[in-house]
Amino acid sequence: MHFTAETSSNGVVERHFTLGESTGVLWSPATANTGAPLLLCGHAGGMHKKAPGLVAGARYSVGTAGYTVAALDAPGHGDRPRSERDLHCGEAIHRARAAGEPIAPIVTDYSRWVAERALPEYRAALDALLALPEIGADAPVGYAGITLGVVTGLLLAAADPRIAALSLGPVFVDDALLELAGRVTVPVQYRIPWHDSDFDRASALELFDALGSTEKTLHAHAGRYDQVPATERASAAAFLAAHLGTGVPV
Amino acid sequence: MHFTAETSSNGVVERHFTLGESTGVLWSPATANTGAPLLLCGHAGGMHKKAPGLVAGARYSVGTAGYTVAALDAPGHGDRPRSERDLHCGEAIHRARAAGEPIAPIVTDYSRWVAERALPEYRAALDALLALPEIGADAPVGYAGITLGVVTGLLLAAADPRIAALSLGPVFVDDALLELAGRVTVPVQYRIPWHDSDFDRASALELFDALGSTEKTLHAHAGRYDQVPATERASAAAFLAAHLGTGVPV
Repeated sequence: MHFTAETSSNGVVERHFTLGESTGVLWSPATANTGAPLLLCGHAGGMHKKAPGLVAGARYSVGTAGYTVAALDAPGHGDRPRSERDLHCGEAIHRARAAGEPIAPIVTDYSRWVAERALPEYRAALDALLALPEIGADAPVGYAGITLGVVTGLLLAAADPRIAALSLGPVFVDDALLELAGRVTVPVQYRIPWHDSDFDRASALELFDALGSTEKTLHAHAGRYDQVPATERASAAAFLAAHLGTGVPV
Repeated sequence: MHFTAETSSNGVVERHFTLGESTGVLWSPATANTGAPLLLCGHAGGMHKKAPGLVAGARYSVGTAGYTVAALDAPGHGDRPRSERDLHCGEAIHRARAAGEPIAPIVTDYSRWVAERALPEYRAALDALLALPEIGADAPVGYAGITLGVVTGLLLAAADPRIAALSLGPVFVDDALLELAGRVTVPVQYRIPWHDSDFDRASALELFDALGSTEKTLHAHAGRYDQVPATERASAAAFLAAHLGTGVPV
Protein backbone atom coordinates (compact mmCIF):
# COMPACT_ATOMS: atom_id res chain seq x y z
CA MET A 1 0.00 0.00 0.00
CA HIS A 2 1.61 3.21 -1.20
CA PHE A 3 0.23 6.57 -0.15
CA THR A 4 0.48 8.98 -3.05
CA ALA A 5 -1.15 12.19 -1.81
CA GLU A 6 -2.44 13.65 1.43
CA THR A 7 -4.74 16.59 2.11
CA SER A 8 -6.68 17.67 5.18
CA SER A 9 -9.85 19.69 5.73
CA ASN A 10 -12.40 20.08 8.51
CA GLY A 11 -10.56 17.66 10.74
CA VAL A 12 -10.54 14.89 8.13
CA VAL A 13 -7.29 13.62 6.58
CA GLU A 14 -7.68 12.28 3.04
CA ARG A 15 -4.95 10.03 1.65
CA HIS A 16 -4.85 8.47 -1.81
CA PHE A 17 -3.15 5.13 -2.16
CA THR A 18 -2.35 2.40 -4.64
CA LEU A 19 -2.23 -1.29 -3.88
CA GLY A 20 -1.25 -3.56 -6.76
CA GLU A 21 -3.51 -2.47 -9.61
CA SER A 22 -6.13 -0.88 -7.40
CA THR A 23 -6.42 2.80 -6.54
CA GLY A 24 -8.03 3.92 -3.31
CA VAL A 25 -8.63 6.65 -0.81
CA LEU A 26 -8.57 6.65 2.97
CA TRP A 27 -10.31 9.18 5.20
CA SER A 28 -9.22 9.40 8.85
CA PRO A 29 -9.75 11.69 11.84
CA ALA A 30 -6.99 14.30 12.14
CA THR A 31 -6.07 12.86 15.53
CA ALA A 32 -5.05 9.19 15.49
CA ASN A 33 -7.83 6.83 16.56
CA THR A 34 -6.32 3.35 16.71
CA GLY A 35 -8.91 0.60 17.12
CA ALA A 36 -11.79 2.76 15.81
CA PRO A 37 -14.10 1.02 13.34
CA LEU A 38 -13.05 0.79 9.70
CA LEU A 39 -15.75 1.29 7.09
CA LEU A 40 -15.15 0.07 3.55
CA CYS A 41 -17.22 1.80 0.88
CA GLY A 42 -18.20 0.54 -2.56
CA HIS A 43 -19.16 3.11 -5.18
CA ALA A 44 -21.97 2.75 -7.72
CA GLY A 45 -21.41 1.40 -11.22
CA GLY A 46 -20.00 4.07 -13.53
CA MET A 47 -18.83 6.11 -10.55
CA HIS A 48 -15.54 6.04 -8.66
CA LYS A 49 -13.96 6.10 -5.21
CA LYS A 50 -14.67 9.80 -4.77
CA ALA A 51 -18.29 9.84 -5.94
CA PRO A 52 -19.96 12.83 -4.24
CA GLY A 53 -22.42 10.78 -2.17
CA LEU A 54 -19.70 8.40 -1.05
CA VAL A 55 -17.39 11.24 -0.03
CA ALA A 56 -20.18 12.98 1.90
CA GLY A 57 -21.00 9.77 3.74
CA ALA A 58 -17.35 9.04 4.45
CA ARG A 59 -16.68 12.50 5.86
CA TYR A 60 -19.84 12.22 7.97
CA SER A 61 -18.68 8.86 9.38
CA VAL A 62 -15.23 10.21 10.18
CA GLY A 63 -16.54 13.47 11.63
CA THR A 64 -19.45 12.20 13.70
CA ALA A 65 -18.39 8.66 14.63
CA GLY A 66 -14.59 8.77 14.48
CA TYR A 67 -14.46 6.03 11.85
CA THR A 68 -11.71 5.43 9.36
CA VAL A 69 -13.23 5.05 5.89
CA ALA A 70 -11.68 3.55 2.76
CA ALA A 71 -12.91 3.28 -0.83
CA LEU A 72 -11.41 1.63 -3.88
CA ASP A 73 -11.98 2.31 -7.55
CA ALA A 74 -13.61 -0.81 -8.95
CA PRO A 75 -11.84 -2.41 -11.96
CA GLY A 76 -12.54 -0.30 -15.04
CA HIS A 77 -13.62 2.70 -12.93
CA GLY A 78 -12.12 5.94 -11.63
CA ASP A 79 -8.37 6.17 -12.12
CA ARG A 80 -8.13 2.69 -13.60
CA PRO A 81 -7.91 1.64 -17.28
CA ARG A 82 -11.09 0.66 -19.14
CA SER A 83 -11.36 -2.64 -20.95
CA GLU A 84 -13.36 -3.22 -24.12
CA ARG A 85 -16.17 -4.65 -22.04
CA ASP A 86 -16.21 -1.61 -19.72
CA LEU A 87 -16.58 0.68 -22.70
CA HIS A 88 -19.22 -1.50 -24.38
CA CYS A 89 -21.26 -1.70 -21.20
CA GLY A 90 -21.30 2.07 -20.83
CA GLU A 91 -22.49 2.46 -24.42
CA ALA A 92 -25.14 -0.22 -24.03
CA ILE A 93 -26.54 1.56 -20.97
CA HIS A 94 -26.65 4.88 -22.81
CA ARG A 95 -28.46 3.25 -25.75
CA ALA A 96 -30.97 1.55 -23.46
CA ARG A 97 -31.64 4.83 -21.62
CA ALA A 98 -32.13 6.69 -24.89
CA ALA A 99 -34.55 4.01 -26.12
CA GLY A 100 -36.44 4.01 -22.81
CA GLU A 101 -35.51 0.38 -22.20
CA PRO A 102 -34.66 -1.14 -18.80
CA ILE A 103 -30.97 -1.16 -18.01
CA ALA A 104 -31.11 -3.90 -15.37
CA PRO A 105 -30.29 -6.81 -17.72
CA ILE A 106 -27.15 -5.02 -18.91
CA VAL A 107 -26.09 -3.86 -15.47
CA THR A 108 -26.47 -7.10 -13.51
CA ASP A 109 -24.07 -9.18 -15.62
CA TYR A 110 -21.55 -6.38 -15.87
CA SER A 111 -21.68 -5.60 -12.14
CA ARG A 112 -21.07 -9.18 -11.17
CA TRP A 113 -18.12 -9.38 -13.57
CA VAL A 114 -16.61 -6.23 -12.08
CA ALA A 115 -17.37 -7.15 -8.47
CA GLU A 116 -15.82 -10.63 -8.77
CA ARG A 117 -12.53 -8.92 -9.61
CA ALA A 118 -13.01 -6.21 -6.96
CA LEU A 119 -13.41 -8.86 -4.26
CA PRO A 120 -9.74 -9.92 -3.96
CA GLU A 121 -8.73 -6.27 -4.18
CA TYR A 122 -10.96 -5.33 -1.22
CA ARG A 123 -9.60 -8.28 0.76
CA ALA A 124 -6.01 -7.26 0.02
CA ALA A 125 -6.84 -3.66 0.95
CA LEU A 126 -8.38 -4.89 4.20
CA ASP A 127 -5.16 -6.81 5.01
CA ALA A 128 -3.10 -3.71 4.34
CA LEU A 129 -5.42 -1.31 6.18
CA LEU A 130 -5.63 -3.43 9.32
CA ALA A 131 -1.83 -3.59 9.30
CA LEU A 132 -1.60 0.19 9.55
CA PRO A 133 -0.76 1.20 13.13
CA GLU A 134 -3.35 4.01 13.08
CA ILE A 135 -6.14 1.49 12.34
CA GLY A 136 -4.98 -1.65 14.12
CA ALA A 137 -5.61 -5.35 13.57
CA ASP A 138 -8.58 -5.41 15.95
CA ALA A 139 -10.60 -2.61 14.35
CA PRO A 140 -14.20 -3.72 13.71
CA VAL A 141 -14.96 -3.63 9.98
CA GLY A 142 -18.18 -2.69 8.23
CA TYR A 143 -19.08 -2.17 4.60
CA ALA A 144 -21.42 0.29 2.85
CA GLY A 145 -22.31 0.49 -0.84
CA ILE A 146 -24.87 1.11 -3.55
CA THR A 147 -25.54 -0.70 -6.88
CA LEU A 148 -22.19 -2.17 -8.00
CA GLY A 149 -20.99 -1.56 -4.46
CA VAL A 150 -23.80 -3.76 -3.13
CA VAL A 151 -22.70 -6.68 -5.30
CA THR A 152 -19.13 -6.23 -4.10
CA GLY A 153 -20.28 -5.96 -0.49
CA LEU A 154 -22.35 -9.13 -0.63
CA LEU A 155 -19.43 -11.04 -2.19
CA LEU A 156 -17.10 -9.65 0.46
CA ALA A 157 -19.39 -10.45 3.39
CA ALA A 158 -19.95 -13.98 2.08
CA ALA A 159 -16.20 -14.57 1.67
CA ASP A 160 -14.53 -12.65 4.48
CA PRO A 161 -15.50 -13.13 8.14
CA ARG A 162 -13.91 -9.81 9.07
CA ILE A 163 -16.95 -7.95 7.67
CA ALA A 164 -19.24 -7.47 10.67
CA ALA A 165 -22.16 -5.52 9.14
CA LEU A 166 -23.44 -4.32 5.78
CA SER A 167 -25.22 -1.03 5.04
CA LEU A 168 -26.62 -1.39 1.54
CA GLY A 169 -28.47 0.85 -0.90
CA PRO A 170 -30.38 -0.02 -4.07
CA VAL A 171 -29.04 -2.56 -6.53
CA PHE A 172 -30.11 -4.27 -9.74
CA VAL A 173 -31.18 -7.78 -8.84
CA ASP A 174 -30.87 -11.03 -10.75
CA ASP A 175 -31.00 -14.70 -9.74
CA ALA A 176 -27.25 -14.83 -9.17
CA LEU A 177 -27.51 -11.99 -6.66
CA LEU A 178 -30.35 -13.73 -4.83
CA GLU A 179 -28.20 -16.84 -4.54
CA LEU A 180 -25.29 -14.77 -3.25
CA ALA A 181 -27.50 -12.99 -0.70
CA GLY A 182 -28.43 -16.33 0.80
CA ARG A 183 -24.78 -16.87 1.73
CA VAL A 184 -24.59 -13.63 3.74
CA THR A 185 -25.19 -14.02 7.47
CA VAL A 186 -24.02 -10.75 9.06
CA PRO A 187 -26.47 -7.99 10.08
CA VAL A 188 -27.69 -6.00 7.07
CA GLN A 189 -29.58 -2.76 6.69
CA TYR A 190 -30.87 -2.47 3.12
CA ARG A 191 -32.22 0.91 1.98
CA ILE A 192 -34.42 1.09 -1.12
CA PRO A 193 -36.35 3.83 -2.92
CA TRP A 194 -40.11 3.28 -3.19
CA HIS A 195 -40.63 5.40 -6.29
CA ASP A 196 -37.81 4.79 -8.73
CA SER A 197 -38.36 3.38 -12.18
CA ASP A 198 -34.85 1.89 -12.24
CA PHE A 199 -35.19 -0.11 -9.04
CA ASP A 200 -38.36 -2.14 -9.02
CA ARG A 201 -39.89 -2.96 -5.67
CA ALA A 202 -40.56 -6.61 -6.25
CA SER A 203 -36.95 -7.53 -6.93
CA ALA A 204 -35.77 -5.44 -3.97
CA LEU A 205 -38.15 -7.30 -1.68
CA GLU A 206 -36.94 -10.60 -3.13
CA LEU A 207 -33.36 -9.65 -2.34
CA PHE A 208 -34.24 -8.68 1.22
CA ASP A 209 -36.08 -11.94 1.65
CA ALA A 210 -33.14 -13.91 0.25
CA LEU A 211 -30.56 -12.48 2.66
CA GLY A 212 -29.35 -15.25 4.96
CA SER A 213 -28.85 -12.88 7.89
CA THR A 214 -30.77 -13.41 11.12
CA GLU A 215 -30.70 -9.67 11.72
CA LYS A 216 -31.76 -7.73 8.66
CA THR A 217 -33.85 -4.63 8.11
CA LEU A 218 -35.33 -3.19 4.93
CA HIS A 219 -35.73 0.58 4.90
CA ALA A 220 -37.89 1.84 2.05
CA HIS A 221 -38.30 5.58 1.58
CA ALA A 222 -40.67 7.60 -0.57
CA GLY A 223 -39.08 9.05 -3.68
CA ARG A 224 -36.21 8.11 -5.95
CA TYR A 225 -32.87 6.55 -4.97
CA ASP A 226 -31.26 9.96 -4.56
CA GLN A 227 -34.05 11.33 -2.34
CA VAL A 228 -32.94 9.70 0.90
CA PRO A 229 -34.41 11.46 3.97
CA ALA A 230 -31.90 12.74 6.51
CA THR A 231 -33.48 10.40 9.07
CA GLU A 232 -32.51 7.43 6.90
CA ARG A 233 -28.89 8.56 6.55
CA ALA A 234 -28.78 8.89 10.32
CA SER A 235 -30.41 5.48 10.68
CA ALA A 236 -27.72 3.85 8.55
CA ALA A 237 -25.02 5.46 10.69
CA ALA A 238 -26.78 4.32 13.87
CA PHE A 239 -27.04 0.77 12.49
CA LEU A 240 -23.30 0.66 11.82
CA ALA A 241 -22.53 2.15 15.23
CA ALA A 242 -24.71 -0.49 16.90
CA HIS A 243 -22.71 -3.29 15.26
CA LEU A 244 -19.23 -1.81 14.97
CA GLY A 245 -19.21 0.61 17.89
CA THR A 246 -17.92 4.12 17.35
CA GLY A 247 -14.48 5.66 17.40
CA VAL A 248 -15.61 8.56 19.52
CA PRO A 249 -13.98 8.41 22.97
CA VAL A 250 -16.61 8.14 25.68
CA MET B 1 -59.16 16.14 32.97
CA HIS B 2 -58.94 14.81 36.49
CA PHE B 3 -55.71 13.38 37.83
CA THR B 4 -56.48 10.41 40.06
CA ALA B 5 -53.07 9.01 41.04
CA GLU B 6 -49.43 10.00 40.84
CA THR B 7 -46.25 7.98 41.25
CA SER B 8 -42.65 8.65 40.36
CA SER B 9 -39.67 6.41 39.55
CA ASN B 10 -36.35 6.82 37.75
CA GLY B 11 -37.02 10.49 37.05
CA VAL B 12 -40.38 9.82 35.38
CA VAL B 13 -43.65 11.02 36.90
CA GLU B 14 -46.67 8.85 36.06
CA ARG B 15 -50.14 10.32 36.50
CA HIS B 16 -53.42 8.56 35.84
CA PHE B 17 -56.33 10.68 34.67
CA THR B 18 -59.93 10.51 33.56
CA LEU B 19 -61.52 12.71 30.92
CA GLY B 20 -65.22 12.14 30.31
CA GLU B 21 -65.53 8.38 29.84
CA SER B 22 -61.91 7.85 28.90
CA THR B 23 -59.13 6.74 31.22
CA GLY B 24 -55.55 7.68 30.56
CA VAL B 25 -52.02 7.97 31.82
CA LEU B 26 -49.44 10.71 31.45
CA TRP B 27 -45.68 10.25 31.81
CA SER B 28 -43.54 13.38 32.30
CA PRO B 29 -39.97 14.25 33.25
CA ALA B 30 -39.58 14.90 36.98
CA THR B 31 -38.49 18.45 36.20
CA ALA B 32 -41.06 20.54 34.31
CA ASN B 33 -40.33 20.77 30.59
CA THR B 34 -42.88 23.21 29.12
CA GLY B 35 -42.90 23.22 25.32
CA ALA B 36 -41.28 19.79 25.02
CA PRO B 37 -42.86 17.47 22.45
CA LEU B 38 -45.98 15.55 23.42
CA LEU B 39 -46.26 11.98 22.19
CA LEU B 40 -49.66 10.30 22.14
CA CYS B 41 -49.58 6.50 22.22
CA GLY B 42 -52.21 4.04 21.03
CA HIS B 43 -52.13 0.53 22.46
CA ALA B 44 -52.78 -2.68 20.55
CA GLY B 45 -56.21 -4.29 20.35
CA GLY B 46 -56.96 -6.30 23.49
CA MET B 47 -54.30 -4.42 25.44
CA HIS B 48 -54.56 -1.21 27.45
CA LYS B 49 -52.89 2.12 28.21
CA LYS B 50 -50.20 0.46 30.30
CA ALA B 51 -49.29 -2.41 27.95
CA PRO B 52 -45.67 -3.38 28.75
CA GLY B 53 -44.25 -2.37 25.36
CA LEU B 54 -46.09 0.93 25.42
CA VAL B 55 -44.85 1.73 28.93
CA ALA B 56 -41.27 0.83 28.03
CA GLY B 57 -41.42 3.07 24.96
CA ALA B 58 -43.02 5.89 26.90
CA ARG B 59 -40.43 5.80 29.66
CA TYR B 60 -37.66 5.69 27.05
CA SER B 61 -39.10 8.78 25.32
CA VAL B 62 -39.40 10.67 28.58
CA GLY B 63 -35.98 9.61 29.82
CA THR B 64 -33.91 10.02 26.67
CA ALA B 65 -35.75 12.78 24.79
CA GLY B 66 -37.53 14.73 27.51
CA TYR B 67 -40.94 14.08 25.94
CA THR B 68 -44.27 14.07 27.70
CA VAL B 69 -46.17 10.90 26.75
CA ALA B 70 -49.87 10.16 27.09
CA ALA B 71 -51.92 7.03 26.45
CA LEU B 72 -55.65 6.38 26.64
CA ASP B 73 -57.53 3.15 27.14
CA ALA B 74 -59.49 2.58 23.95
CA PRO B 75 -63.25 2.09 24.36
CA GLY B 76 -63.88 -1.41 25.71
CA HIS B 77 -60.26 -1.77 26.86
CA GLY B 78 -58.24 -1.41 30.08
CA ASP B 79 -60.19 0.23 32.90
CA ARG B 80 -63.29 0.79 30.74
CA PRO B 81 -66.48 -1.28 30.54
CA ARG B 82 -66.84 -3.96 27.83
CA SER B 83 -69.81 -3.99 25.50
CA GLU B 84 -71.39 -7.14 24.04
CA ARG B 85 -69.44 -6.57 20.85
CA ASP B 86 -66.14 -6.23 22.73
CA LEU B 87 -66.75 -9.57 24.43
CA HIS B 88 -67.90 -11.30 21.22
CA CYS B 89 -64.87 -10.07 19.32
CA GLY B 90 -62.48 -11.42 21.93
CA GLU B 91 -64.20 -14.82 21.79
CA ALA B 92 -64.20 -14.86 17.99
CA ILE B 93 -60.45 -14.20 17.96
CA HIS B 94 -59.81 -17.00 20.45
CA ARG B 95 -61.92 -19.40 18.36
CA ALA B 96 -60.12 -18.42 15.14
CA ARG B 97 -56.71 -18.87 16.82
CA ALA B 98 -57.72 -22.29 18.15
CA ALA B 99 -58.92 -23.33 14.69
CA GLY B 100 -55.77 -22.02 13.03
CA GLU B 101 -57.80 -19.51 11.03
CA PRO B 102 -56.69 -15.97 10.17
CA ILE B 103 -57.87 -13.35 12.63
CA ALA B 104 -57.51 -10.37 10.29
CA PRO B 105 -61.14 -10.37 9.06
CA ILE B 106 -62.42 -10.25 12.65
CA VAL B 107 -59.89 -7.70 13.82
CA THR B 108 -60.17 -5.12 11.04
CA ASP B 109 -63.89 -4.39 11.45
CA TYR B 110 -63.68 -4.39 15.22
CA SER B 111 -60.61 -2.13 15.29
CA ARG B 112 -62.22 0.43 13.06
CA TRP B 113 -65.35 0.43 15.21
CA VAL B 114 -63.27 1.00 18.34
CA ALA B 115 -60.94 3.55 16.75
CA GLU B 116 -63.80 5.67 15.39
CA ARG B 117 -64.94 6.16 18.98
CA ALA B 118 -61.40 6.63 20.29
CA LEU B 119 -60.82 9.47 17.82
CA PRO B 120 -62.90 12.16 19.59
CA GLU B 121 -61.48 11.01 22.91
CA TYR B 122 -57.90 11.49 21.71
CA ARG B 123 -58.80 14.92 20.34
CA ALA B 124 -60.39 15.95 23.63
CA ALA B 125 -57.37 14.62 25.51
CA LEU B 126 -55.10 16.61 23.22
CA ASP B 127 -57.11 19.78 23.98
CA ALA B 128 -56.79 19.12 27.70
CA LEU B 129 -53.11 18.14 27.59
CA LEU B 130 -52.03 21.17 25.59
CA ALA B 131 -53.91 23.35 28.12
CA LEU B 132 -51.73 22.03 30.93
CA PRO B 133 -49.09 24.63 31.85
CA GLU B 134 -46.37 21.96 32.07
CA ILE B 135 -46.99 20.97 28.43
CA GLY B 136 -48.06 24.23 26.78
CA ALA B 137 -50.20 25.06 23.76
CA ASP B 138 -47.22 25.14 21.38
CA ALA B 139 -45.82 21.69 22.18
CA PRO B 140 -45.20 19.71 18.96
CA VAL B 141 -47.38 16.58 18.92
CA GLY B 142 -46.57 13.15 17.54
CA TYR B 143 -48.36 9.82 17.70
CA ALA B 144 -47.12 6.24 18.02
CA GLY B 145 -49.13 3.03 17.95
CA ILE B 146 -49.48 -0.61 16.92
CA THR B 147 -52.46 -2.59 15.53
CA LEU B 148 -55.61 -0.92 16.93
CA GLY B 149 -53.38 2.03 17.80
CA VAL B 150 -52.38 2.36 14.14
CA VAL B 151 -56.01 2.65 13.06
CA THR B 152 -56.59 5.31 15.72
CA GLY B 153 -53.42 7.13 14.73
CA LEU B 154 -54.32 7.24 11.05
CA LEU B 155 -57.81 8.55 11.88
CA LEU B 156 -56.28 11.14 14.19
CA ALA B 157 -53.65 12.31 11.71
CA ALA B 158 -56.26 12.58 8.95
CA ALA B 159 -58.60 14.61 11.17
CA ASP B 160 -56.37 16.72 13.39
CA PRO B 161 -53.67 19.00 11.97
CA ARG B 162 -51.93 19.13 15.34
CA ILE B 163 -50.46 15.66 14.72
CA ALA B 164 -47.04 16.33 13.14
CA ALA B 165 -45.66 12.81 12.68
CA LEU B 166 -46.72 9.16 13.02
CA SER B 167 -44.58 6.26 14.21
CA LEU B 168 -46.54 3.12 13.37
CA GLY B 169 -46.11 -0.58 13.95
CA PRO B 170 -47.90 -3.54 12.36
CA VAL B 171 -51.65 -3.48 11.74
CA PHE B 172 -54.30 -5.65 10.13
CA VAL B 173 -55.13 -4.08 6.78
CA ASP B 174 -58.41 -3.89 4.88
CA ASP B 175 -59.69 -1.67 2.07
CA ALA B 176 -61.11 0.87 4.52
CA LEU B 177 -57.68 1.30 6.08
CA LEU B 178 -56.05 1.77 2.67
CA GLU B 179 -58.58 4.51 1.91
CA LEU B 180 -57.89 6.15 5.26
CA ALA B 181 -54.12 5.99 4.73
CA GLY B 182 -54.51 7.99 1.53
CA ARG B 183 -55.85 10.90 3.59
CA VAL B 184 -52.77 11.06 5.81
CA THR B 185 -50.13 13.55 4.71
CA VAL B 186 -47.75 13.95 7.67
CA PRO B 187 -44.39 12.14 7.83
CA VAL B 188 -44.80 8.46 8.73
CA GLN B 189 -42.37 5.76 9.78
CA TYR B 190 -44.08 2.37 9.49
CA ARG B 191 -42.36 -0.63 11.08
CA ILE B 192 -43.39 -4.15 10.04
CA PRO B 193 -42.21 -7.69 10.85
CA TRP B 194 -40.95 -9.73 7.89
CA HIS B 195 -41.68 -13.15 9.37
CA ASP B 196 -45.02 -13.05 11.17
CA SER B 197 -47.92 -15.23 10.13
CA ASP B 198 -50.42 -12.69 11.51
CA PHE B 199 -49.16 -9.72 9.50
CA ASP B 200 -48.80 -10.59 5.85
CA ARG B 201 -46.23 -8.70 3.87
CA ALA B 202 -48.36 -7.93 0.84
CA SER B 203 -51.01 -6.03 2.76
CA ALA B 204 -48.36 -4.15 4.76
CA LEU B 205 -46.69 -3.04 1.54
CA GLU B 206 -50.08 -1.99 0.17
CA LEU B 207 -50.68 0.14 3.24
CA PHE B 208 -47.27 1.78 2.94
CA ASP B 209 -47.94 2.48 -0.72
CA ALA B 210 -51.37 3.94 0.06
CA LEU B 211 -50.11 6.47 2.60
CA GLY B 212 -50.61 9.99 1.21
CA SER B 213 -47.50 11.34 2.93
CA THR B 214 -44.68 12.80 0.87
CA GLU B 215 -42.21 11.68 3.52
CA LYS B 216 -42.77 8.08 4.51
CA THR B 217 -40.45 5.20 5.33
CA LEU B 218 -41.15 1.49 5.69
CA HIS B 219 -38.89 -0.36 8.12
CA ALA B 220 -39.17 -4.13 7.81
CA HIS B 221 -37.24 -6.29 10.26
CA ALA B 222 -36.50 -10.00 10.31
CA GLY B 223 -38.59 -11.97 12.78
CA ARG B 224 -42.01 -11.58 14.33
CA TYR B 225 -43.74 -8.37 15.41
CA ASP B 226 -42.30 -8.65 18.92
CA GLN B 227 -38.72 -9.19 17.74
CA VAL B 228 -37.90 -5.56 17.00
CA PRO B 229 -34.12 -4.94 16.89
CA ALA B 230 -32.84 -2.28 19.26
CA THR B 231 -31.62 -0.32 16.23
CA GLU B 232 -35.22 -0.07 15.02
CA ARG B 233 -36.51 1.21 18.36
CA ALA B 234 -33.77 3.84 18.25
CA SER B 235 -34.66 4.64 14.65
CA ALA B 236 -38.30 5.31 15.59
CA ALA B 237 -37.16 7.64 18.37
CA ALA B 238 -34.78 9.44 15.99
CA PHE B 239 -37.58 9.80 13.42
CA LEU B 240 -39.85 11.45 16.00
CA ALA B 241 -37.01 13.67 17.22
CA ALA B 242 -36.33 14.79 13.65
CA HIS B 243 -39.94 15.90 13.21
CA LEU B 244 -40.93 17.02 16.71
CA GLY B 245 -37.59 18.10 18.13
CA THR B 246 -36.60 16.95 21.58
CA GLY B 247 -37.32 18.23 25.05
CA VAL B 248 -33.70 17.89 26.09
CA PRO B 249 -32.16 21.33 26.68
CA VAL B 250 -29.19 21.92 24.38
